[in-house]
Amino acid sequence: MSQDIYDKIMMLAKRRGFIYPSFEIYGGVAGFYDYGPLGSQLKNNIENLWRKYFLLKDKCVEINTPTITLYEVLKASGHVDEFTDLTVDCKKCNQSYKVEDIIKDNITVQEAIKSDKIKCPNCGAKLKNPYNVNLMFSTKVGIGKTRKAFLRPETAQGIFTDFHLLYRFAREKLPFGVVQIGKGYRNEVSPRQGMIRMREFAMAEAEVFFDPNDKTHPGFAEIKNKELFLYDNVKELKLSTDKAVKTGVINNQALAYYMYLTQEFLLKAGVDPKKFRFRKHKDDELAHYATECWDAELLSNRFGWVECVGIADRSAYDLNSHIKASKTDMYALKKYEKPKVVKVKKIVPNMGALGPLFKQKAGEIKTILEEMKVPASGKISVTIDGKKIQIPQKCYKIVETTEKVTGDKFVPHVIEPSFGIDRILYMIIEHNYIETKKKGEEYKYLKLDPIVAPIKVGVFPLINDERLVKIAEEIDVKLRSEGIPTYYDDGGTIGRRYARMDEVGTPFCVTVDHDTLKDKAVTIRNRDTTEQERKKIVELVKYLKTKLF
Amino acid sequence: MSQDIYDKIMMLAKRRGFIYPSFEIYGGVAGFYDYGPLGSQLKNNIENLWRKYFLLKDKCVEINTPTITLYEVLKASGHVDEFTDLTVDCKKCNQSYKVEDIIKDNITVQEAIKSDKIKCPNCGAKLKNPYNVNLMFSTKVGIGKTRKAFLRPETAQGIFTDFHLLYRFAREKLPFGVVQIGKGYRNEVSPRQGMIRMREFAMAEAEVFFDPNDKTHPGFAEIKNKELFLYDNVKELKLSTDKAVKTGVINNQALAYYMYLTQEFLLKAGVDPKKFRFRKHKDDELAHYATECWDAELLSNRFGWVECVGIADRSAYDLNSHIKASKTDMYALKKYEKPKVVKVKKIVPNMGALGPLFKQKAGEIKTILEEMKVPASGKISVTIDGKKIQIPQKCYKIVETTEKVTGDKFVPHVIEPSFGIDRILYMIIEHNYIETKKKGEEYKYLKLDPIVAPIKVGVFPLINDERLVKIAEEIDVKLRSEGIPTYYDDGGTIGRRYARMDEVGTPFCVTVDHDTLKDKAVTIRNRDTTEQERKKIVELVKYLKTKLF
Repeated sequence: MSQDIYDKIMMLAKRRGFIYPSFEIYGGVAGFYDYGPLGSQLKNNIENLWRKYFLLKDKCVEINTPTITLYEVLKASGHVDEFTDLTVDCKKCNQSYKVEDIIKDNITVQEAIKSDKIKCPNCGAKLKNPYNVNLMFSTKVGIGKTRKAFLRPETAQGIFTDFHLLYRFAREKLPFGVVQIGKGYRNEVSPRQGMIRMREFAMAEAEVFFDPNDKTHPGFAEIKNKELFLYDNVKELKLSTDKAVKTGVINNQALAYYMYLTQEFLLKAGVDPKKFRFRKHKDDELAHYATECWDAELLSNRFGWVECVGIADRSAYDLNSHIKASKTDMYALKKYEKPKVVKVKKIVPNMGALGPLFKQKAGEIKTILEEMKVPASGKISVTIDGKKIQIPQKCYKIVETTEKVTGDKFVPHVIEPSFGIDRILYMIIEHNYIETKKKGEEYKYLKLDPIVAPIKVGVFPLINDERLVKIAEEIDVKLRSEGIPTYYDDGGTIGRRYARMDEVGTPFCVTVDHDTLKDKAVTIRNRDTTEQERKKIVELVKYLKTKLF
Repeated sequence: MSQDIYDKIMMLAKRRGFIYPSFEIYGGVAGFYDYGPLGSQLKNNIENLWRKYFLLKDKCVEINTPTITLYEVLKASGHVDEFTDLTVDCKKCNQSYKVEDIIKDNITVQEAIKSDKIKCPNCGAKLKNPYNVNLMFSTKVGIGKTRKAFLRPETAQGIFTDFHLLYRFAREKLPFGVVQIGKGYRNEVSPRQGMIRMREFAMAEAEVFFDPNDKTHPGFAEIKNKELFLYDNVKELKLSTDKAVKTGVINNQALAYYMYLTQEFLLKAGVDPKKFRFRKHKDDELAHYATECWDAELLSNRFGWVECVGIADRSAYDLNSHIKASKTDMYALKKYEKPKVVKVKKIVPNMGALGPLFKQKAGEIKTILEEMKVPASGKISVTIDGKKIQIPQKCYKIVETTEKVTGDKFVPHVIEPSFGIDRILYMIIEHNYIETKKKGEEYKYLKLDPIVAPIKVGVFPLINDERLVKIAEEIDVKLRSEGIPTYYDDGGTIGRRYARMDEVGTPFCVTVDHDTLKDKAVTIRNRDTTEQERKKIVELVKYLKTKLF
């Protein structure tokens, strides 16, 4: 097989310090990659650009919660039961497969199972008895008396379980958004798609909480005429955010707003607009928590259209689950203009009667009675361990009292833009990988936007004359002290040094030559135009900053 | 017990969105904390400041490797065998303890075990039979055929296992440094020290590779007269880096250089110089991989002197371990001026004789023979599975040949500054937590350096007049678009709003008042001096940037 662009990029990425396969010296394992010096810087730049859109522009706040997550959290969120892949083992060659990966395009997973038509792609044996496998990495916290835990499948749950604290931080006003950037984990059955399917990956997620009756966004007016690139699973179409919402193509303003913010971010980060679209999930694709979802898909030469961002309406699913499981008050309050005084009936338990009758269960019954509403029938029963228990009238009193109510409690809805940083990073490299010719020879470079480029400026003395070296080193130190990542290089011809910088996407190179000694100026060479400008050293920082940031 | 400063800070931290106990709605679990909106921003700022020192100033490069780490890596590094705590269980009350935590100050762990004098701090029962417990969280990669793995106890191993690739990235020149910022994990037996002993923590580590015969640092000359705050376990002393190295207090320039860089970073980040020192490890304290280590210790009101950074000379320990275990060429090369041609004797195995004699072992013997040096004795034996096997002369030939050698291979030494970000973050809050009085009332604030402060500028309209609100909102948007994190607040009196910002360490507040409508200027209030200045709106960004960054 001849090399496709993926192979070429991964070779360049390894050779030049962007991406290495993890644990290679111990034989490696699929689904793990290391970011080398340039990859790591590129990743930081992408994440910081993301912060500009989500924190500085949209005013979300960022939090940071553990990757190890207690069983209780992920049981409540549905991940213990739902975060699974249908898997099948080959008894003959001892391989495991995700069913979805090995069936033919024209049949569904359900059909494949029924028709008994799945074959081992390795040895050709018939595969039977697929089963659901949970994809979370599990571990235990503590020694001796341990607690069951998982590595988080998404950063979102850390936000949901802090909702009541974050709502207070937002001074109890909706909407407000909370983001998290960090690792997510998915113990894939047998990942075979390189950077596109990783077992440990970098995510950036925003959870934006809305009043379910008001999914408008304060920033919507400003972007209502901006166009989105949409795909409805049949055709591609360009629609303004406003029109998309009004015609019902997109359910609400909030979704449309975050779709546009996502589009802005991706295009600024260097995604090719011709290889970008939002695709709407079909009903049978939706995750267990979502009511509507749009994927930002990027087109890859090898992988086709790849989901890189999911923008989902998670409704009140998660908060409701955690309220139910943890019994914590995680409601929002819609305040009245002024508090209302309302009459309420309350059950007042009588422990003198409950105690002798229900023994050790009396305490639990008391708590349930205190929290329950008085049923219209007047008959009161509680359910403990699945058993319904009638409570005799002598065990409680019903009293009528007044309460001051300041507003209506409700569970907010959540709009979630969730970004796969590794996929985006790979796609940015692929979309900006240019093969051309220079003086008849093959020439490769990355036309990365300066905002994401790992090295901003190459700094060279033209030759190894110590007077030039001294000035070049001073410029290097100066630029770094101003927060501009540089690469100092005094090896080989200038052409060779330009080529090295072009190959890793460095937008500018500064060369100190003999004229510098007289005119205190340097040559600035532009990667994309290959044009050269002469600039005074004293003006260099200011000039570069306007070009770079 | 009355509240100490730790309690007060943790209450403030929770109330104002710096730090929350993790999983609180599910009862929580010791050793895990969430960073809320302000804590997360503070953490980002500390890490980015660290990058300024280690990446931009010292020219280290950053990489990013998985938190899940294969068994083979951590077996080779010694963590599977050595990363343990001596633990003891109470059979009576079913608690587990780290022996070190429950012995009296005046005896060592060894004495405590021998003298049989450890008692359960909970129920008073005598505790017996302490045992070593490995502190790594373990998990499995894959489904079916799984591979054993751990959550990394340090980020360093990700750097060591990539050494050969990073050495190439550094164009085969020493010294060069590689850093990693990310999560580390330690499944503590029973952590009882809050933020000081976490099970999942944030680390920033640098591994700087040196020629073992040349632990000088190119930046040393510039800092040789700078003073370090040292403690030799007896007394505190101030010494210039140069004198400390020359008198042998610190073993080499490289260690001293990174100690000074660490000191500069910590003081800039806001550590109180009077609560800071470097303490040298005693021989029996050294980790399994270290030959010399200095801890940067910070003084806490509750915890005393706390190790927040360790600066260790790891010698060639880790690279040697991985070379041995993985059989990968991870050497550096000291190049000769020009290549030498040397005569070498080589063993050439004869498979025709080896095969019949040693059957299935023949291949392994062949590989060993090809790699071994010809012994002076002339007699050749190999060791397989612990058994020494004599190899008859007919099984090989010894030939003399010439080889071009370009230099001497060697294993670099490593100097490692390793930072516990969470501890530093907590200490920065503690050292900058000020209790004072204002108009007779208690007044608390954080005098955080602007470089780390989570919010840089509070933006207020003096009253809710829509003309003032409009200007204040425009200023807020402008500052954010310039990368300055703000907090817009129009609730309550100006005094109340200042107090809110002071309590979270915001260095400046900008107020729009009625005069603004005429003079296009605003009032800038300084947190520390409480002084107010009037500045034109058009000059605001520039003015604040010089104050903030």
